[in-house]
Amino acid sequence: MRLDQATKEQLNEWQQSLSEQYANFKAAGLNLDLTRGKPSADQLSLSDRLDGILEGDYKDNAGTDLRNYGGIDGIPEAKQLFADMIGVNAGDILIGGNGSLPLMYFSVQTALLHGLNGADSAWNKETGKIKFLAPVPGYDRHFTVCEHQGIELIPVAMNDDGPDMDEVERLVKADPLIKGIWCVPRFSNPTGAVYSDAVVARMAKLANIAGDNFRIFWDNAYAVHVIEQDCDELTDILSACRAEGTEDSVLIFGSTSKITFAGAGVAFMAASANNRAAIQKALSFTTIGPDKVNQMRHVRFLKDQATLTAHMDKHAKLLKPRFDAVLKQLRAELADSGMATWTEPKGGYFISLDTLPGLAKEVIKLAAEAGVKLTPAGATFPYGNDPQDCNIRIAPSFPTISDLEQATTVFITCLKLATVRQKLAA
Amino acid sequence: MRLDQATKEQLNEWQQSLSEQYANFKAAGLNLDLTRGKPSADQLSLSDRLDGILEGDYKDNAGTDLRNYGGIDGIPEAKQLFADMIGVNAGDILIGGNGSLPLMYFSVQTALLHGLNGADSAWNKETGKIKFLAPVPGYDRHFTVCEHQGIELIPVAMNDDGPDMDEVERLVKADPLIKGIWCVPRFSNPTGAVYSDAVVARMAKLANIAGDNFRIFWDNAYAVHVIEQDCDELTDILSACRAEGTEDSVLIFGSTSKITFAGAGVAFMAASANNRAAIQKALSFTTIGPDKVNQMRHVRFLKDQATLTAHMDKHAKLLKPRFDAVLKQLRAELADSGMATWTEPKGGYFISLDTLPGLAKEVIKLAAEAGVKLTPAGATFPYGNDPQDCNIRIAPSFPTISDLEQATTVFITCLKLATVRQKLAA
Repeated sequence: MRLDQATKEQLNEWQQSLSEQYANFKAAGLNLDLTRGKPSADQLSLSDRLDGILEGDYKDNAGTDLRNYGGIDGIPEAKQLFADMIGVNAGDILIGGNGSLPLMYFSVQTALLHGLNGADSAWNKETGKIKFLAPVPGYDRHFTVCEHQGIELIPVAMNDDGPDMDEVERLVKADPLIKGIWCVPRFSNPTGAVYSDAVVARMAKLANIAGDNFRIFWDNAYAVHVIEQDCDELTDILSACRAEGTEDSVLIFGSTSKITFAGAGVAFMAASANNRAAIQKALSFTTIGPDKVNQMRHVRFLKDQATLTAHMDKHAKLLKPRFDAVLKQLRAELADSGMATWTEPKGGYFISLDTLPGLAKEVIKLAAEAGVKLTPAGATFPYGNDPQDCNIRIAPSFPTISDLEQATTVFITCLKLATVRQKLAA
Repeated sequence: MRLDQATKEQLNEWQQSLSEQYANFKAAGLNLDLTRGKPSADQLSLSDRLDGILEGDYKDNAGTDLRNYGGIDGIPEAKQLFADMIGVNAGDILIGGNGSLPLMYFSVQTALLHGLNGADSAWNKETGKIKFLAPVPGYDRHFTVCEHQGIELIPVAMNDDGPDMDEVERLVKADPLIKGIWCVPRFSNPTGAVYSDAVVARMAKLANIAGDNFRIFWDNAYAVHVIEQDCDELTDILSACRAEGTEDSVLIFGSTSKITFAGAGVAFMAASANNRAAIQKALSFTTIGPDKVNQMRHVRFLKDQATLTAHMDKHAKLLKPRFDAVLKQLRAELADSGMATWTEPKGGYFISLDTLPGLAKEVIKLAAEAGVKLTPAGATFPYGNDPQDCNIRIAPSFPTISDLEQATTVFITCLKLATVRQKLAA
């Protein structure tokens, strides 16, 4: 089925048969969900040893009682574990609570209200609306962190190797009120792109154009979340920035949310001494410190990089068949159809699919009416506004494989139906 | 030894012998700490069963997988447990992370920047500096939450039954920019006072004077932290407010920090539907949700109010001898001396002692030089400014009893020495 070679008769026939298929799906009363990037129960069970792993030993190596107050920056063993995981120094790490989103929100807030380089550096001291660059498609919760704090988002294009750096450099040069950029540098949400060495190198130089108060929000959420072993590595941006003398320009975030328990893991950030000092000082007004007991559970469970990698291989074994289930059908049904393009990621949690312009909302609506829930159209763009109305994020991790296969079948039918209808109406 | 009856000769003799005692303490090279209200290791060990208590069962009664994302308001069982603990309804509760300070900071922030009753109610929409009332002596971290957010603190006197309500009512009537008051209503930090029914009743009517955007920050940190069984109960302010039609005027906070693990407990707040909706909405931009696994550990461990009370009795058995060790010496050495007054709390974590005016800093300095660390003078007042320079907060929970006895002996010697020196210099 190739759209551009179809005659009107063929299109009418297709519409007819697709409508019948679709009607059958609707009648089946399905209830399937491809919305959010949640680990499956099987993945979560890989970490069930966490509760109880301390066996009554609540001290760290230095003898600190982890049950008591204190330790706002985290325990040394957890710093080492996460530093090794993302390729920085233990001294660069600040440990948080059970999610990285609070650390990201708080870092934006601190830069905005209190400044990361003294009170005069606070973004809200500037005249005019503060702006962030948002590579699109991207992660909705990044965008809403900014929206909630009154920061405007400017979309920039994502390429296969990271954001369009020509555009990024042009924009920050033209507007000094652009103070940040959101990045998911490895297995990007949702395209799965891994930033190339060239992109990382240009990112490390960005502060030279964008100024001292510019910050790269480097959400390395999928740092070790490999599905295919032949995937690309990511260059450490903090080292690259240090080599350029721009180490204050980047804030790195990560967590074990998709390594251990999604809702009960440990988050962390890595940053220069200046950035950590400013954020830790602001944090000290809001908390006595994060949960050190849960940090130690993770240290005892994940142990070292070899153990961590072996653990992530178990996740990959559960995730790969799910990604394959979706990709196999997409290839079989839509390859060379002229109806859609999609990414085939080697890690992370998403497949990003583009319909023809103007069809994403309609496809998602059709699927919803047939009992298949997809991430709302536009969610991967700031303000929910996908100007081409074409991007759809597919999250294959949570459902069973048979549910995934069924949901994908329905989804493809909806996509074809909407596309053929559009073509006929043109 | 009674100060007002002493002759000059006696004072000189006392000074001589106290100086000698003090010199001996200094020479002993002590290292004792009475600063912060931390539970002792023995207290923490009462909850060591927490890690491992789930025995692989990570579901709540409704079947929710507690390991995964979600549940921004907390799990139903935890809501019920904490509601029963402080005498409100489960539906009034919002569960947080491992400490109540973040919930308090975030509630102030939301009221200030986003409003608890629609965007127009945000305090920063008003012209002029926003102010809070701070009953003194009080808790330094309450004051710094305000200071960090640019809110001015106005001290009001604490009586034995709560804040001086005449003064509170007069102040809020005179200045509509006063938007809040900090309260630790049961076993107040540091005086140990329990707010009387009359004070709670007047608090519940405060919004009628202070206006719709005024909030009482009711930090019920020591709700069940009884040391002496014949202590006063606290009236539930949320019910009192509901009876007055002022339920939006109070935000209640609590946690298990001093019930289970100080750094790895569960915090919560209780508030009206309006307040919870506003705070939960703002929270949804900053977090996917708190740690549900740790909530369930607490549900399984603390179970119900009978189990919780039995658990708190074990804390009391460890705390009472420590309080007694300090109070016994204070009574023996300072009763009727005219040199100091102090509180004898029936719960909570502190003894509050007043020296004669102008002596707290000097006593704390003398003690520090003799190896006994006390909370810095002024810490119980906004901006560290105790205008009488007389209040000292003593925290007996953490040290061993023999350390406590020794520290108290040194402290009393320092207090007498400073007092006699002042009298001689007058």
